[in-house]
Formats: sequence, C-alpha cells, structure tokens
Amino acid sequence: MRTTNRWLVAACAAVALSQSVRSDEGMWLYTNPPREQIRSRYGFELTSEWLDHLMKSSVRFNSGGSGSFVSEDGLVLSNHHVGADALQKLSSEKKNYLRDGFQARTPAEEVRCVDLELNVLQSIEDVTARVNAAVPAGASAEEAFKARRRVMAELEKASLEKTGLRSDVVTLYQGGVYHLYRFKKYTDVRLVFAPEQQVAFFGGDPDNFEYPRFNLDVCFFRVYEDGKPARVPHHLKWSKAGAAPGELTFVSGHPGRTSRLLTVAELEYLRDFQFPYTLEFLKRREVLLNSWSQRSAENGRRAKDELFGIQNSRKARDGGHAGLYDPAIMGAKVEAEKAFRARLEGQDELLAAKTAYQKISEAQSEIRQIALKARLLESGHGFSSDLFGIARSLLRGSEEFAKPNGERLREYAEAGRESFEMELFSDKPIHADLEILTLSDSLTFLAEKLGYGDSLVQRVLAGKSPRARATELLQGSRLVDVAERRRLYQGGAAAVGASKDPMIELARIVDGDAREVRRKLESLDEAKRQGHAAIAKARFALEGASSYPDATFTLRLSYGVVKGYEENGKSVPPFTVVSGLYERAASMEYRPPFDLPKRWVDKRRAIDGNVPFNFVATHDIIGGNSGSPVVNRAGEFVGIIFDGNIQSLVLDFAFEEKQARSLSVHSAGILESLRKVYGAGVLVDELIKGRRKG
Amino acid sequence: MRTTNRWLVAACAAVALSQSVRSDEGMWLYTNPPREQIRSRYGFELTSEWLDHLMKSSVRFNSGGSGSFVSEDGLVLSNHHVGADALQKLSSEKKNYLRDGFQARTPAEEVRCVDLELNVLQSIEDVTARVNAAVPAGASAEEAFKARRRVMAELEKASLEKTGLRSDVVTLYQGGVYHLYRFKKYTDVRLVFAPEQQVAFFGGDPDNFEYPRFNLDVCFFRVYEDGKPARVPHHLKWSKAGAAPGELTFVSGHPGRTSRLLTVAELEYLRDFQFPYTLEFLKRREVLLNSWSQRSAENGRRAKDELFGIQNSRKARDGGHAGLYDPAIMGAKVEAEKAFRARLEGQDELLAAKTAYQKISEAQSEIRQIALKARLLESGHGFSSDLFGIARSLLRGSEEFAKPNGERLREYAEAGRESFEMELFSDKPIHADLEILTLSDSLTFLAEKLGYGDSLVQRVLAGKSPRARATELLQGSRLVDVAERRRLYQGGAAAVGASKDPMIELARIVDGDAREVRRKLESLDEAKRQGHAAIAKARFALEGASSYPDATFTLRLSYGVVKGYEENGKSVPPFTVVSGLYERAASMEYRPPFDLPKRWVDKRRAIDGNVPFNFVATHDIIGGNSGSPVVNRAGEFVGIIFDGNIQSLVLDFAFEEKQARSLSVHSAGILESLRKVYGAGVLVDELIKGRRKG
Repeated sequence: MRTTNRWLVAACAAVALSQSVRSDEGMWLYTNPPREQIRSRYGFELTSEWLDHLMKSSVRFNSGGSGSFVSEDGLVLSNHHVGADALQKLSSEKKNYLRDGFQARTPAEEVRCVDLELNVLQSIEDVTARVNAAVPAGASAEEAFKARRRVMAELEKASLEKTGLRSDVVTLYQGGVYHLYRFKKYTDVRLVFAPEQQVAFFGGDPDNFEYPRFNLDVCFFRVYEDGKPARVPHHLKWSKAGAAPGELTFVSGHPGRTSRLLTVAELEYLRDFQFPYTLEFLKRREVLLNSWSQRSAENGRRAKDELFGIQNSRKARDGGHAGLYDPAIMGAKVEAEKAFRARLEGQDELLAAKTAYQKISEAQSEIRQIALKARLLESGHGFSSDLFGIARSLLRGSEEFAKPNGERLREYAEAGRESFEMELFSDKPIHADLEILTLSDSLTFLAEKLGYGDSLVQRVLAGKSPRARATELLQGSRLVDVAERRRLYQGGAAAVGASKDPMIELARIVDGDAREVRRKLESLDEAKRQGHAAIAKARFALEGASSYPDATFTLRLSYGVVKGYEENGKSVPPFTVVSGLYERAASMEYRPPFDLPKRWVDKRRAIDGNVPFNFVATHDIIGGNSGSPVVNRAGEFVGIIFDGNIQSLVLDFAFEEKQARSLSVHSAGILESLRKVYGAGVLVDELIKGRRKG
Repeated sequence: MRTTNRWLVAACAAVALSQSVRSDEGMWLYTNPPREQIRSRYGFELTSEWLDHLMKSSVRFNSGGSGSFVSEDGLVLSNHHVGADALQKLSSEKKNYLRDGFQARTPAEEVRCVDLELNVLQSIEDVTARVNAAVPAGASAEEAFKARRRVMAELEKASLEKTGLRSDVVTLYQGGVYHLYRFKKYTDVRLVFAPEQQVAFFGGDPDNFEYPRFNLDVCFFRVYEDGKPARVPHHLKWSKAGAAPGELTFVSGHPGRTSRLLTVAELEYLRDFQFPYTLEFLKRREVLLNSWSQRSAENGRRAKDELFGIQNSRKARDGGHAGLYDPAIMGAKVEAEKAFRARLEGQDELLAAKTAYQKISEAQSEIRQIALKARLLESGHGFSSDLFGIARSLLRGSEEFAKPNGERLREYAEAGRESFEMELFSDKPIHADLEILTLSDSLTFLAEKLGYGDSLVQRVLAGKSPRARATELLQGSRLVDVAERRRLYQGGAAAVGASKDPMIELARIVDGDAREVRRKLESLDEAKRQGHAAIAKARFALEGASSYPDATFTLRLSYGVVKGYEENGKSVPPFTVVSGLYERAASMEYRPPFDLPKRWVDKRRAIDGNVPFNFVATHDIIGGNSGSPVVNRAGEFVGIIFDGNIQSLVLDFAFEEKQARSLSVHSAGILESLRKVYGAGVLVDELIKGRRKG
C-alpha cells in the first residue's frame, strides 16, 4: 500500500477540519500530538523527548513510503515493497535483486541505489501568518494562487539557504494552516539486505490487503555521507520480544492522502468521477502489463514493480470506492455536514463558512469539466512513458528555471532543484519494448477520451496509428542517453528549443494545453482552499482546536492496540506465526504467488514455527505508512507496518476500529528469519546492539 | 476465439455489400460458393455433392463455436475451448473435467452434457421476397420492424411444424437478403474425450492469438438419439497425413461476426464508442475474476471458463480496435465509400442508395445516445449474474409466451422454445460467491455509468451498497433451484406475477426501461437495415452479384493455403512440431500457463517430436470458426481451426493475407497425441475407420 500515485496526493487536497475525535483515531501532527487522549485512554504520557526521538528516527522514502533508523550507523529499515522501486532499478536480465534478494556482509558489499532519496524531519515551523499575509485582500483565485506559490517558494529558498536543509511548505487542513518542514536529506543510499520477493510479498496481489498474512516485507538500506556509513543521532532500539497482544503501540510514518474532511460535494466528485476514472485507468494498465508480462520471463521482470504498484492501487481504490457507495459512511458524512451547517445559521461572523460550501461545490463542478483533460495531459495518462516524462522535464525546465523562483511551477522551485536533477539524470533502465507498449496504449486511451477527431489528438498521432507513432517516437528519441539529457539541460532554452528529438517535439505539442488546464485547476483548487480555510476557522471557533488534518505524506503519529477482530462471525486472531507461511503455501499447491523461495523450503526444520510473524492493530494508517516503525511505550521497535486489511480501505474517508486493522511484520519474526533462514548474523548483531561491529 | 458475446453477434448487424473479391478472401454462403475463384486460382472444381457432404458434416455449437462429424456413429470433434463451457458445467470441486481431461473407453462411460445443443444445417431457402412483401410501403421503422419480426416468426413456425427441424430466418447483407436455415438439432450430447486444459490451451492468455503455437485444442463429443449413439449420414474421412505445405484447404464453420461492409459512420461508432466501451467492460471483469481466482484453487476452478472467455474477447477486441485506428485500414474504407458514392451521382434510379448513407449516419447517432443504456439494461452488463438472467427469462417468458407468436421478442418465438427451455432448466452449477462478486461489481458499474442519483439506480440499489444489495439478492432468491423455476414457468403470468423472489423483483424493476431502450434500438437498426438494403441493391446494379455477406454465426465456406509469413523481417514457418511444445515449456520454466500435464511429461520419450502439431493458413476466418474442420480437395479432415494469429484480428474489418493467418491443430498431431500420450486406441480406430468398433 505504497503511495504510488503522487499526483493524487496533491490533487485530493481539499479538506476542512476534523470531527471530534474518539477511540484510536488520528494521524496526528508532531506539533499537536494526542497527549490528552493517550493519557486518558491508556495512562501513558507522551513527553517531548520521546516524541523528538521518534520523529528523528523516522525516515521518509521519496519514492513513496516510510522507514526508520535501526542502528546508529545509518541502517534504515523499510518494507521490501517500498524498496522495490530501488531494487528494480538496480536489476538487469542477469542479476535480479527484486526476485532473488540480496545480502551484504560488509559495507564494501553494499550496493548504491540509482536515484533513491531519503528525508529525515528535523523541525516544523508554523508559517500560516506569513503565507496568508502575502495574499492581497480581494485577490482573484488565480492571483491568490500565484501570490501563495510565490511566498511558499521564497520561504523554502530562504530556509534552504539558511539551514542547508530540504525545506517544504506543507498545506494542512487544506489552507487552514501552513507549516514549513525541514528535512535532512540523504542521497547516497545503499542496499544492505533484501529477502526474495516471493516471501516478502508472499501471496502477491491475491493476498494483498488480506489477513491472516505471512509476509517478510522488509528491506534494509544504509545512508552514507562522504562515502562512509552516516552516524545518525537517533535510531530505534530493537525489541527482541516484539509486540504483545493488547499492547499499546505507536506508528510514526507518512500517510499519503486521506479524504476525511472533504465536503459532501467533493466526496460525490470522488465517487462519481475520480474513483471510476482512476479505476478504469488502473485496470486497463493492469491487464496490459499482466498480459505482456506473461509472454516471457524477462518481460515479467521488467514490468514487475510497476505491475505490483498498479494492482496495489487498484485494490485500495476498489475498497475506497466501495466505501463511498456505502450508505453507512456516506450517509454519516451527509448528516454531519448538515448538522454543522445548521450550527452556522444566525452566526454572522461565520458567514464566510456558510457560503464556503456553495463556493466549494461550484469550484468542484468546474473541476469536473476539466478533470479528464487534466489527467490525460498534465498527469500524463495520455503519454505513459518514462521518456515522455524526461522530455517534459527538459522542456519545462528550460522555461521554468529561467523565471524568478516564485513564479515557477511548484516542482521547479529552487529548493527542490537538487532532487529534480537527481531524478532527471537517473540512469535507471528504460526498456524500449515496455515503453512502446505503454505509450501506444495510452495514446489510444487519449484518442478514446478526447475523441479521435480532437485537433490535439490529431497532432499527437501525426497521421499514424498509436502503435506506429509510439514506435517511431521511441526509436527516434535519444533521451535514453543520460549524457544527451545533460547536454540539453545545460544548454537551457536555446538547446532544448533547437532540439528535434521527437519526444521533445511531442512534449512541445502537448505543453500549451497541459499548462492551460493546470492553470485552471490550480485556480479552482485555490478557490476551494479559501472555502476550506473559512470552514476551518468556523470549526475552530465552534469546536475548539484539538484535531488532526488529512494526510499529506508528511510525518504523523498514530496509536492503537494489538488486537484481532470478528469477520463473518469468526474471530480472527491478532498474530500469525511462521509455520502458517508453510501451511498457506501448501494449501495453494505452491503455485505462484504462493511458492516459497528455495532457501525457505530448505530451512523449514531450522526455523521456529511458533515465532510471531505478522500482527494486526487498531492504528489509523493509510497508503504511504508502509514501512513505518511500530514502537512500544519505551520507544522500542516492535514491528513494521506493511499493509492494512481489506476493511481498512475505508479509512480514506472515516476511521473505523471494529474491523479495520493495520498489518505489521513482527520484530521477533524478522530476527528469527534473518538468523535461521538467511544466516545474517552480522545484521542481527547490528540490530540488537544498535551499531555495526568494528 | 470463440464467439462469447452473442449480443454482439446481433448488435453489429448493419452491413452493405462486399467490395470485389480477390485472393483467398471470403466467408462464402453455401448457396453462393466461390466456384469461379477456386477454379481460376487453384484449378479445382467445387461440385454440389462435395459441398453438400461438407455442409452436412459440419456442426454448430450453440454455446458459440463450430465442429464436425468424424465418424458415422455421431462422433463430433471441436476445440477444447469450445467444449470448455460444457466441461465447466460438468465439473465440481471433486471432479474437474476442464483441468484434468476425460476419456471414455466405451459408450457407457460417455458423460451427458448439461445443456449443450448442436445444430447441423440441412437446407437453405431464400425467403427475401416473402419477408419484404410483409412490410407495408411507407411503414415507419418501428412498424416495419414489427411486420418483419412477425413474418419471420411465422416462417420459422411453419417450417418447424412442417419439417420438425429447427428453423431460423437469417438476415444477410443486413437486409439485402433473408434466408431460412433448417437445422437438425441434437440435445443429447455426451463427452467422449478431452485432454487436460494445460495442453489444450498451453500458453493460456499470453500465447492466445500468437504463433508459433503448440496446442492440442480438441475435444470429442458424441450425439445420441433415443439414448443410443446417433447414426449420422455424413461425416469427414480422417487424413492420417494431414495438411501439407502449400496445399489448398477449406474451412467449413460458423464465423460469428464481421464488420467489413459497414459504412464509415458505423465504423467510427465502433471505434469511438463500442470498442472502447466493450474493452472497458472486459478489462474490468478480467481484473475482477483474475484477482478472485487467485485467492484459492476452488475460486480459480469456478471462474476459469468465464475468465478465459473474457481474456479471449479482450485480446481479440484490442486487436480489432487497433485496426480501426490504423490509417491504412480506415483510410481505405473512407476512400472506398467516397468512390462508391461518387458512382451513384446522377443515377436517379439509385437515389435511395445515395440518401441511405445519411440515413444510416443519423440512425447511428441516435443509437449512440442510447447504446450505453442498452448495454447496461438490455444486455445485462449492469446485472452480471446467472440468476438475474434466469429471473428475466421467467418474467419475460410469462409475458411473451402469452402473446401471438409474431408479436413476441425474437428469442421467445415458438420455433426456439425448446432451446429456450433447455437453457432455463439447465442445472449447471451456480456459485453464490461468484454471483455476489460479479453482481456487486456490475451494480457498481451501473451506478457509475447511469449516475448514482439516477432514479432507476436508486430503485435497483434500494438504499444499500452494491455489495450488500447483491448479497441480499443472492441469499434471498430461490431460483437456484430448478424445480422452483419449473413451478414459476408452468404457473405462467399468475405465478410469476405473484412471486416475491427478490431476483424476479429486480428484473421487474428493470424491465420497463430495458424493453423501452430495446424497442428504440430495434427501430433504429431497422432504419439502418433499410439503408443497407438500398445500398446493396445499388451495389448489385453497379457491380454484379458475386460476393459474400458479413459473418452471422451461420455456416460459411472459406479457403486458403497452408503457408508461413514474414514478421519483423523473419520468416515464420507454416508448421510447428510436437517437440516445440516441450521446448516452449522449458523456456518458460514450466510456470503456469506454460506447465505441462504430468502425462505429457511422462510420455516425452514415447511421442514422436517431429510430427506436425499446429499450422497456419490463409483462410478467411473469425471468432466462431473455432472448431471448424479444415479439409483437403478430397474432403478429408486434415486439421481443426482453433485460433488466428495476432495479425488476423483486423479481419473483422478487412481481409488481409500477407500476415493474417488461421491457426489449426494438425490431424497427424491429434492422432499421435491420442495414441502415444493417452493410449486412446479405441478412439483412434474410430477416427481411422470412420465408425465405432463392434
């Protein structure tokens, strides 16, 4: 349940303030932790030291996931499926890290990842007043958006220059609050240990989001500085005993996106357009990649990571969509909104909030008119190809970097330039056959959705069939060569403007329309943001301040207890044990994805079948939390989040603790596997001692 | 490439007359065989006796495919994938005919199929004049449609009463010609031999429509009369040598549907609406079934046949859709239509043809407005469930059978009643879990497409989520019980009207709207039909009569030579041999669907690796031709069609013989497999001698 679709993370940003909080609900800001709830419910005191230590031990994977430091020598633990992107990029037809796993016994054997960036949060600063002050009173939505973009870019640049830290202004409560997050950034990240994907993702798509589970979904990396393992000031102590039934535990990670505070009009938009559209897109792509993958083992290897991401998103969104069709959830949303709006009646000072609902609804209707075009052109659903993405980055880069920092598109702001270049010059493998496959299909999709007669479609296809056009583009482009990208990037507008590379020419054909639809969308989002700010203000006035904002792929704290649940009248226990892995494999006749790595078959007698393997808890989590550490009251590592059960998929819209559960790998199961199956004594020592030997 | 979607067979009915014919093109009517072409091109004379023998040896599978008699004792050979539906219906969790295959060594061991009906064409009568005479001059499209439906039902009923044969009036050249087809019908059909699906469909979806191939895609049945094997007057003699390179061969089978004679406006409709819609529907269903199938072996078994059908249709339509986006094909269509319309200029007696193009285009635009609703409500895409289909048949049957024969919906005409009842009272297995899965998904699809607020959607969902509603319907309905269906059917309108069965209530909610959209669609199809009749007349006048109509799942004759082709600069040979099967399996590491049945592994040394296994030829075929016999000049069985290559998928719109090829199993490969792998000596004897021993 990695956050694969970063666009959505940004696009779903339209949220008001939370309902009152009860139970184990909440993805809490570190600046507003649920101290009172935890004290009253569990009698435990969250101290500032405890929080600071956990915050600085938590790691964000920019590819879309979470992790934590587990030794002072920069050892990072995350999920195998979070690391899969990095493993895929390291792999070739000859050496398949994703399938076969990897183990470095010394730092010299650790393998540097192609373009992985890790962030560690250092501080949070409230900049709401400064952001709002920059927007002139009475500004149009478009002007307001530009002013806000400008001040955010300035704040980020000033912070970067002052502190040397990656600095991001984050919009919370959808315009209610703005925070400046500063991260220490690691770009030299090396692979230390990965199990085989068969056991990391045992059961594959069929068992994804299901429980009971038996997954060793872990992957170890190490951050380096100046070519040496980094000494990190904070890391989590390893608990050999691990999580216990009924125990209070905490999750520190980066939930990607929730939609709990949307207005009913926005939820209807999700239900009626966004989810159906996205699911159509995902299912189409899944069939395409699945069918192609099965033609040969090498095809399968090339598409594997993307295919997993697609299936994962599809399953998550199918579950979320079902939630929006559930009268129990949607009905409650309608009632809550009605009740709140009733409270606004007669309160003249809250007039802005009263009218905000209508404003948001109108903006949403306008968004509906352009949303499809935005997906196709700006999100690139009509041009699914890595090379197209590179061509667009070069084209836009040549225009945007020439502008003052505050006037650029958000992703070209100066503060993010280093990360931008890292991605642009990544020499991750690009496979022409796979590119032709996805590009032809997405060109067909574009023509279907905009209409074959559409003038842009005609210019894009240039008189050829989608397949012939995709083939011509791929065979003609030189952008697969990183040196050529550098040449164009360094040559700026002159070089890019003179380029006759067909992929750059395609990006040029599309860019006017793409920018135009984005401009409209950003104005409409700003209009919604203003509406949400008014609602947020009213909610603070009526209900007080203590709540949490919707998830934004920034660090949050959740809590909950290790606990089973009832399903179809049966009780589902909180733990699985190692022997269950072998039993499930046998019951599925060892057919992929229920086959076991040879090593696991061979070590069956060696490993203790009774050791806890996976467990469930009531944590409030969502995609992006994958890889988050689960810690006990002592702040020790007791497990690692890797999934949620199928009932947790409605957490996008509302918290639920009767059946919704987080899924984790147990710290004891990890140790037992490393020791008995992989003979990874050096790694186990480092985990137990919290530092490398020697 | 079975015709799984019978709706499409009917819906795509809108065709004019053919272009002039060259090369090996054509799916010829037995009443208008390509005598001259074959004489001049191959120096072979098609005699009436030769044709009559082949026609009466050809068998139609009403589940959607073709076959032939291969012994005088009623032995029928078809593809395993045509028989799959019957195998699936016979199977249970304990005995899996589809997966494990079957062999009867004596008639007593032959297993009776649940609801399989086979038809053998006996005669063809031209009834065009009588059908057209029934339509009053100046009738509206709706009146004309009703009049035509009435006279067709009358003709069929009269023929049935007179001859005792199944009698169908078939619309050819889309209203240019009407033929009355009379079939001998067999409803006691027993399974004789089936190989394991692994070898019948070796390579599964990934290798479907690909070549080289290695499939033993055969299945033997036997027709019975009065509880004994039927003596059939015609059967094909088996050729032990089989097809040879460069040899002229013939295919006699039932191509389901082609769209070669559509106007450009109709092709654009296919390109812009019908194919995208159908592909969205198929891919959604494929993901649903695939994901569910993988959760357990039993799930996989239950969904297997449907999943194959879906994947097969998806791959075929993706290929067809690509053809419509190919300027080489679509451009030629535009040019040909322009040229023909130019020839009509100034010919006052062809005025009707001149205006027909505009009429067809207008009707097509109106169809576009209602097509989605027609798919959802009338084709049942919004209610995918066997029980819903049964409920609708009971509901409509209670209304339709009370009407005069000529006023009923086409499928309730008296002549088809026996077949209708056979299907309604079939005790094929209905799995509640699979039904809930597909019904909830299709209810969601319905809500997405019509809009959640739509009043019909609201009535259908009845205040529940799609899943809750589907569960309630499945758990509450008693229609799974065949006795209950009989009770309601025999009770007629009174019993059905009084029924509170929730599935019948659902059918009742939908039926008004479904009938209304069908009524509109039928009128618009009639308007198109009149336009096509005028164009057909003009074409006869300008170009003479010798041509073939679009495919209609009725018996046709195709011809071609056994011949390889060039692909990506490489020469693809016309034959594969048995050893290639083992090599492909090894290269794919024996992973499903490239695993081999144990029997095949064990017999590797016994079987001759050099025997021809599959071959390609230039036959003009399409889905529905699966299982068609391939015969040589002597009328002997030399192979059996089971697929086309990927390049053949454009045959829907235009014939092509540079790369498009039919795929067949070779008669020598079948014998060798039966003998050496299955030890099926009795069956082999029957094939060689043309009769059962004893």
